[in-house]
Amino acid sequence: MAKLVSKSSAMKHLHIGALVFPRMDQGDFTGPFEVLSRVPESTFHVIAKDRTPVRDMRGLILTPETTFSEVRPLDLLVVPGGAGQEDLMEDETVLSFIQQQAHNASYVFSVCTGALLCGAAGLLRGVRATTHWSALHLLVYFGAIPVNARVVIDGTHISAAGVTAGLDGALRVASLLRDERVAQQIQLSIEYSPQPPFGSGSPQTASPAIVNEVRLSSQKITESRLATAKRIAVRLGVSVPLGR
Amino acid sequence: MAKLVSKSSAMKHLHIGALVFPRMDQGDFTGPFEVLSRVPESTFHVIAKDRTPVRDMRGLILTPETTFSEVRPLDLLVVPGGAGQEDLMEDETVLSFIQQQAHNASYVFSVCTGALLCGAAGLLRGVRATTHWSALHLLVYFGAIPVNARVVIDGTHISAAGVTAGLDGALRVASLLRDERVAQQIQLSIEYSPQPPFGSGSPQTASPAIVNEVRLSSQKITESRLATAKRIAVRLGVSVPLGR
Repeated sequence: MAKLVSKSSAMKHLHIGALVFPRMDQGDFTGPFEVLSRVPESTFHVIAKDRTPVRDMRGLILTPETTFSEVRPLDLLVVPGGAGQEDLMEDETVLSFIQQQAHNASYVFSVCTGALLCGAAGLLRGVRATTHWSALHLLVYFGAIPVNARVVIDGTHISAAGVTAGLDGALRVASLLRDERVAQQIQLSIEYSPQPPFGSGSPQTASPAIVNEVRLSSQKITESRLATAKRIAVRLGVSVPLGR
Repeated sequence: MAKLVSKSSAMKHLHIGALVFPRMDQGDFTGPFEVLSRVPESTFHVIAKDRTPVRDMRGLILTPETTFSEVRPLDLLVVPGGAGQEDLMEDETVLSFIQQQAHNASYVFSVCTGALLCGAAGLLRGVRATTHWSALHLLVYFGAIPVNARVVIDGTHISAAGVTAGLDGALRVASLLRDERVAQQIQLSIEYSPQPPFGSGSPQTASPAIVNEVRLSSQKITESRLATAKRIAVRLGVSVPLGR
């Protein structure tokens, strides 16, 4: 596709940036990139601590092109998740970068367990948000209000559920940054008219056996995420009702 | 997510590979990667002519890790598309790599205008196939039978429509390579339960104004693709009825 037609003549140029990090889930980033890199009059920045290429949790190489210290204030910060999010939950360099950008940005958009990183950075206190279904119960530790929805918009924070929800969320974000017409042009360009061949895309619709198998496969990281979330709740001064 | 549980004990290890090239559409590749890199007992190879990183059509850097001459015979070859596909349509090195791998592979999976590359390699003669909606009319020049569907399976060739159809197609491919249970586990892991916020994902459902705008934005490449397809039809000895 060539550049999309847009009739607005004097649009503000937008700076959109996404964090990349080792053992992230590449789909949390590349789904939103597919949509948001097509926003008219915008630049997409791929950001990390330094420019060393990283591998996602399944081995794909992703190459950052700018760094925390170099990138300009963003209009939109995209925060992906994936297994490697867990390693950054107490990383002050990462958390303060998120805080600092969030302070200036029009929107922060978390995808999948990127919501936990935003939570650790203190962005989700009192904010309605979603995340990957296996981590939804952890949002309370960051003072967030968990919402079991595909995409949640609460003020300046947009959150998408697991991985592929980043596409749905990014189209919402594109319409917030520009308008629905732009979002619809992008949707048609990328022919986003999904037809999943099976109905097992959420724990509400998958068979109990499938849910159980996938839960088991992610049990270790879910336990680790819970322990981390509890430590962070203490640091943030969030009190979670007993029994959670 | 950790590795998915699988009960089969002696599965054949599968080699899955995807072509990457300059000005491709990264989503044609990263969508299928998200699904297929999770197939149990498999290795995913990111392949190009050489190991030089490439930029997709929106600027994302993708890094191949093996080359045409080095990669082993694959069980599945993934052929993505995007604007840069047009530059490879008469590239004998690329076409003979596709032919050679297709000869040995259990399946070839084209995504978006990757179908045109497979067509130029002569793989689609008499084969029912789909591609990005803006290019569907070009499939006849390769002797293919165009089918306006999200995913088409005809013998060993699986084709997906534009960009995001790669997710739907890859889940079908995962179930062919393993079984439905594996595909459903992967679907749940990546929470693929899509909820597009707008209905403009196909030219049948988008408003005429949106279709027109997106058609205009891709008019130049569509014209170039038509001219190329006509040359290739001559080379392949495909006769296309007048008036097409």
